[in-house]
Amino acid sequence: MKFTISRSRFIKTLNDVQRAISNKVTIPILTGLKLELTHNGLTLTGSDADISIEAIIDVNDPDAQLVIAETGNIVLPARFFGEIVKKLPNNLMTIIVEEGFQTTITSGPASFNINGLDANSYPRLPEVNAAQKLTLSADILKQVISQTVIAVSNQESRPILTGVHLKVNDQLLSAVATDSHRLSQRKLTLENTQNLEYDVIIPGKSLTELAKILTEDIEEVDLRITENQVLFTAGTIQFYSRLLEGTYPDTDRLIPTESTTQVEFESNVLLASIERASLLSHASQNNVVRLVFEPADQVATIYSNSPELGNVEEALKFENLSGERLDISFNPDYMKDALRSFGQTNVKVAFTSALRPFTLVPSEDDDNFIQLITPVRTF
Amino acid sequence: MKFTISRSRFIKTLNDVQRAISNKVTIPILTGLKLELTHNGLTLTGSDADISIEAIIDVNDPDAQLVIAETGNIVLPARFFGEIVKKLPNNLMTIIVEEGFQTTITSGPASFNINGLDANSYPRLPEVNAAQKLTLSADILKQVISQTVIAVSNQESRPILTGVHLKVNDQLLSAVATDSHRLSQRKLTLENTQNLEYDVIIPGKSLTELAKILTEDIEEVDLRITENQVLFTAGTIQFYSRLLEGTYPDTDRLIPTESTTQVEFESNVLLASIERASLLSHASQNNVVRLVFEPADQVATIYSNSPELGNVEEALKFENLSGERLDISFNPDYMKDALRSFGQTNVKVAFTSALRPFTLVPSEDDDNFIQLITPVRTF
Repeated sequence: MKFTISRSRFIKTLNDVQRAISNKVTIPILTGLKLELTHNGLTLTGSDADISIEAIIDVNDPDAQLVIAETGNIVLPARFFGEIVKKLPNNLMTIIVEEGFQTTITSGPASFNINGLDANSYPRLPEVNAAQKLTLSADILKQVISQTVIAVSNQESRPILTGVHLKVNDQLLSAVATDSHRLSQRKLTLENTQNLEYDVIIPGKSLTELAKILTEDIEEVDLRITENQVLFTAGTIQFYSRLLEGTYPDTDRLIPTESTTQVEFESNVLLASIERASLLSHASQNNVVRLVFEPADQVATIYSNSPELGNVEEALKFENLSGERLDISFNPDYMKDALRSFGQTNVKVAFTSALRPFTLVPSEDDDNFIQLITPVRTF
Repeated sequence: MKFTISRSRFIKTLNDVQRAISNKVTIPILTGLKLELTHNGLTLTGSDADISIEAIIDVNDPDAQLVIAETGNIVLPARFFGEIVKKLPNNLMTIIVEEGFQTTITSGPASFNINGLDANSYPRLPEVNAAQKLTLSADILKQVISQTVIAVSNQESRPILTGVHLKVNDQLLSAVATDSHRLSQRKLTLENTQNLEYDVIIPGKSLTELAKILTEDIEEVDLRITENQVLFTAGTIQFYSRLLEGTYPDTDRLIPTESTTQVEFESNVLLASIERASLLSHASQNNVVRLVFEPADQVATIYSNSPELGNVEEALKFENLSGERLDISFNPDYMKDALRSFGQTNVKVAFTSALRPFTLVPSEDDDNFIQLITPVRTF
């Protein structure tokens, strides 16, 4: 293998592919980056067995200045090779693989000689032979991801809850995540997808990494789903993730349909008040803030305290408070995540009782996005 | 105690004073921030016993909007109080100390109640009764600090080497630091300081913290030195540091006066080559790079290798190479620190032999700043 390429173009794709590469893998060769050079271009592959990313730099890509002298393939130590490439002196670099997988990287006066590995020992990527695909706008997909992954569990005790439950049925997409303390659900109406039906659980970590490679130049993403794999195609990047096996709990029945106390807030104003109160709750063992709503007096107050440090009290700014008096306590960190996921908008909050989950929805378009938080019993 | 103040003005001074406050102190009250309100203004004090910082917000400072209702003093948990102040909703905040050191902090609708401590239990700051003072430009002082602290030792086995040796004598200031592997020495000609004579060792950590509070609005710094303390006065800030006890080693005799191989580099060009080579040395156990100078052929080459990963070789860009052939090895991290301390300029490097320390000086003004690095024996 022998080729010359623009370093800046190479680094752009390297940064994407490196998202799949971890030093904490049980298969040693997966700490490596696979390079495969054909007359079509250079393919970079990285994988941690859960996620695999493959990206091609096309021979005709004008930014790449790719000159192919001899095709071939190699696996190089990913982190170390990446550091070298980023520090080379000139923009063009030449990579030559010689006998025994010895690899020379030259750029201007600098010449590195590093030990590579046989690319034939690198695991094959999963085959995703899906007859159909679902095409989504990259912006919408990123939004769906950011709105749901916040509620994914990071506890391995119930692995199924570490994923996002994605359903497509009857031209409707729904994405749900819950860690059993809170839940986030986003719905989306699709077009021209009459035949599509999916019901899968995608690891939250995969979606978080996928969102990072969806840069502004990517407009659309194709999803292809088989029994145990999902393949996202975004521009020249193929992003594979395994699916979680098992049955996701029925979350529809968790979402209350009625409420006894209702109120609206500007999300960022409420967020600032919650952040202040959580200064004290974080210093305390149980990390709880308390809200008291008094519709008769049109007063809403937030409280928190730490036996060691002190306490805080603040009159909240709200709109349209109605219903019954309520005194409720909850983990402020769940509320902070939820409020941030709305962006700067008005949110409607609806409560049933001090011990039942309460919901947050955007004041406008309140059908498609809902966050649910379970309160904490303090008495 | 009761007063109202602008939060933004308060935070500016709080950030300075907090540099002295650590949670790793043996005297519990030192995790606190002392506030002292007189009719002249509000004084903030922080200390970790080694460093103490005191800063006054003058009652007439227009940015402070200070309204004094009742003078007094209090000690508040520094980190927690700082977090509260930074998150309050309005720019004005009111602080009231009531019975039992209970302190209320209010701003707009938010009201925090925290437990304070008796300010009379806070240690007294050292008294620095120095008849004379030395005034330095803040920019020059910051430069002297940044050029010398890099060579300070962080090993407590020889505490004296964790300081910078500052001497003033005969209108000449010299600052020297060495960790016994490398040395950095800066000299400075003073004006109108005929009577001043100092010979003290200031902890490197104190100087690093001092440099951080020397923001652009501070033009001059006054130094006052007693037997075991130094007091830096910068604007409204008083910065106290203990001095290190003991005799600093005689460093003058370490600096070679002759050389057998001489060469010049652009500091940032050489730095980039050293950084590349150190990618391999860092992956190796002994962290060494090798330079070979061949004046007869006008060639200079850098090498490094890691038995596991590979090796690197690069032809260096240089000027004015003369003298004898030389093959020398050293720790590239010392070289990186040294080169960065020069900024973007040309440096002259002078070698005596593969086992003797070599020196770096700026190509211009080569009398006042010298870095010395001890090579590593590799054979």
